[in-house]
Amino acid sequence: MSLTNASPADAAKAAKSASHVLATLSADARNDALTAIHDGLVAARDDIFAANARDLELAAEAVAAGKLSQSLVARLDLAKKGKWDDMLKGILDVRDLEDPVGRVTLRTRLDNGLDLERVSCPIGVLLIIFEARPEVIANIAALAIKSGNAAILKGGKESTESFVAISRAISAALDKTQVPNGAIQLVTTRDVIPELLALDQYIDLAIPRGSSDLVRYIKNNTRIPVLGHADGICFTYLEQSADPAMAAEVIVDSKTNYPAACNSLEGLLVQDAALSTLLPPVAAALAAKGVELRCDPQSKAALKDVPGLNIVDATEADFSTEFLNLTLAVKTVSSLADAVAHINANSSHHTDCILTSSKELAEQFMSAVDSSGVYWNASTRFADGTRYGFGTEVGISTNKIHSRGPVGLEGLMIYKYKLRGHGQVSATYGEGAGRKPYLHQKLPLE
Amino acid sequence: MSLTNASPADAAKAAKSASHVLATLSADARNDALTAIHDGLVAARDDIFAANARDLELAAEAVAAGKLSQSLVARLDLAKKGKWDDMLKGILDVRDLEDPVGRVTLRTRLDNGLDLERVSCPIGVLLIIFEARPEVIANIAALAIKSGNAAILKGGKESTESFVAISRAISAALDKTQVPNGAIQLVTTRDVIPELLALDQYIDLAIPRGSSDLVRYIKNNTRIPVLGHADGICFTYLEQSADPAMAAEVIVDSKTNYPAACNSLEGLLVQDAALSTLLPPVAAALAAKGVELRCDPQSKAALKDVPGLNIVDATEADFSTEFLNLTLAVKTVSSLADAVAHINANSSHHTDCILTSSKELAEQFMSAVDSSGVYWNASTRFADGTRYGFGTEVGISTNKIHSRGPVGLEGLMIYKYKLRGHGQVSATYGEGAGRKPYLHQKLPLE
Repeated sequence: MSLTNASPADAAKAAKSASHVLATLSADARNDALTAIHDGLVAARDDIFAANARDLELAAEAVAAGKLSQSLVARLDLAKKGKWDDMLKGILDVRDLEDPVGRVTLRTRLDNGLDLERVSCPIGVLLIIFEARPEVIANIAALAIKSGNAAILKGGKESTESFVAISRAISAALDKTQVPNGAIQLVTTRDVIPELLALDQYIDLAIPRGSSDLVRYIKNNTRIPVLGHADGICFTYLEQSADPAMAAEVIVDSKTNYPAACNSLEGLLVQDAALSTLLPPVAAALAAKGVELRCDPQSKAALKDVPGLNIVDATEADFSTEFLNLTLAVKTVSSLADAVAHINANSSHHTDCILTSSKELAEQFMSAVDSSGVYWNASTRFADGTRYGFGTEVGISTNKIHSRGPVGLEGLMIYKYKLRGHGQVSATYGEGAGRKPYLHQKLPLE
Repeated sequence: MSLTNASPADAAKAAKSASHVLATLSADARNDALTAIHDGLVAARDDIFAANARDLELAAEAVAAGKLSQSLVARLDLAKKGKWDDMLKGILDVRDLEDPVGRVTLRTRLDNGLDLERVSCPIGVLLIIFEARPEVIANIAALAIKSGNAAILKGGKESTESFVAISRAISAALDKTQVPNGAIQLVTTRDVIPELLALDQYIDLAIPRGSSDLVRYIKNNTRIPVLGHADGICFTYLEQSADPAMAAEVIVDSKTNYPAACNSLEGLLVQDAALSTLLPPVAAALAAKGVELRCDPQSKAALKDVPGLNIVDATEADFSTEFLNLTLAVKTVSSLADAVAHINANSSHHTDCILTSSKELAEQFMSAVDSSGVYWNASTRFADGTRYGFGTEVGISTNKIHSRGPVGLEGLMIYKYKLRGHGQVSATYGEGAGRKPYLHQKLPLE
């Protein structure tokens, strides 16, 4: 890993060049590098914690001066229970995942002795912009090397000392491996994000990990493709045939399990025929967890006799708002088609759910809703790479191309076509006199 | 199909809304629409040819006034041998391809009664900007409907009368099918491209089909992801162990089979050890086809005794130029590593080839070259969706995400995750006391 005070352009150029070497390394060579990083971090523990203590000291001063929030300081602290060990374990977990490089996904015999093969390969250079959590840097370096991609890392400034110490350890570890040192570049100079975002000739994919403001800023200021999501505005449609106890349990989990997460519920769409039957027990269960309901007039009227609720009149904006706290918008709809139309127009296309006993309606909903996750009778909180069994999560994408939903290592891959011939030329083939037809014979992928 | 004189924003909004219906239609419903389009065009033949004649008349006047090139007029002419019949056949060919919608590519049991499925689905709304060839509109409408995507079409103004007549026939045909009329929007108002490129809230993917200037303009002026390639700068590395006759044949085909194509050869990299043995016969074979060679000093010296060559001193810029005619740059390199470095820095990452008898060097080259097509002993001209057996070609992409190389219907698809549960909530699962682990059991794909 290089610690760069060089210009962003030089860092990106070096990363590109390293990516061409990294792409040719064997799985063993990449895995060995992850073992070396793990061991190097273990050996450098004291230095890293000393650096982290300096970050924490500066942060404490900034909090005292009212320039930083206490919650950010908590995220900086590497000594927080489990954080350091989880970081180390995460590197080995990524190492032990199946190799994503070199998977053959298509094999076609164009003619005898002329075989086409589609093979997965790294994208090239990733730009990863993240906030102040210091353990993220090791996690990202592991993901990049495992997937054969070079990476340029730009972290939040409050963790600079920790980042430098961690990346020194990673750099020293990589020196003993086949992974070129330039493959992971830490950019520590300030205010370089606009410059980095202009380097689309070197950088193939940008992955912002942080607030929706950060993601939105990056999407709006680069030609580099961006993988991620700005908002998580998830809806659940409560259909009249849903089981009441199941509905209450799933909605409570979706809303209250971790309200600040992008896969938490923000809007409940209630079928009018379910207002008097299903909504009251659901509302009571939510109230018991301290949830404020922003109701439209119909749902408010349906709840007038339920004691202990915290109801506020909803505004139109509430039905497309990411609250990220214990607030839930409640809107009445007359049919599945209305629910789908509201979701397709107002959700962030992250994860949306239908609660119903009808398989037919559920399948209609899952077919018609244009979101990365479409759920039937399950909490929106399941939208997560670890929960999906991907082993690791690069992020969650609401994009409509490349990768969508929780993204694992597969999302960091593209493919190339390899054609192996014996001197064949295009003029031999095609239609017309004296031309040969193509065989186009599907071959097993092995 | 709607003929829009409405604003681009209204056209895009209507396409988005139609895309949500189109995404839920069965394969039969989409295929029936293609049959209807085919039959409608057959029935409207006379009207369409009359409209095309009006386009041709205006074009002839423009040529006479020196405002248009004769080659463009030839592209406008629907009566040109085979064009009309090929257009009709193309619609039925696309109809008969395997359905790309609803393919299950992952199934995981998260827990008993909680099954995750990844299913291919349309991207949504495509913006397709193309030049004046009038038959392209039917081809694109067929691709869009087959893949379940809505499309906004903006064609070159010289074919406006033909486009309007063809789209009237398509529109009348679609009225009798389940495909909503708004699914295909033809925008005929002028100068609307900048407005269309700003509509990233409605348009999911832009596909420019035309000159590299058009592609570059679009890539530089939109936040919508763009599928395509601006340049086709393809290289071949001639290694010392290559068979001389094979090398000459492949290089001649790559350069001269259709010099204006994006998959034609623009640069030949010759290993120094092959200068006196392989280059002379290759150069003679190229000269026999009228190819001008732009040589570096070493290759020029190696060819000084070969009669009948057309040699010009190369400039540095020649080694990264798309000539699109019978010109070939020839550069000497000392090793495979040098060849790979030159290609990775100067090719357009479209298709690059090695000519060698060494399997080991070939595999090294194909692993290290960062291009969508990497070939061993085969003409670069094979880089084409039809030749690869994809049935149809949307375009060729040099992007590093989503789709790369020749793109068939698969390149117009994304996926969604469907999760079918029985009321499971996230709080039940994970590590810690009383929590259940996830099963993460791989299920067969059907």
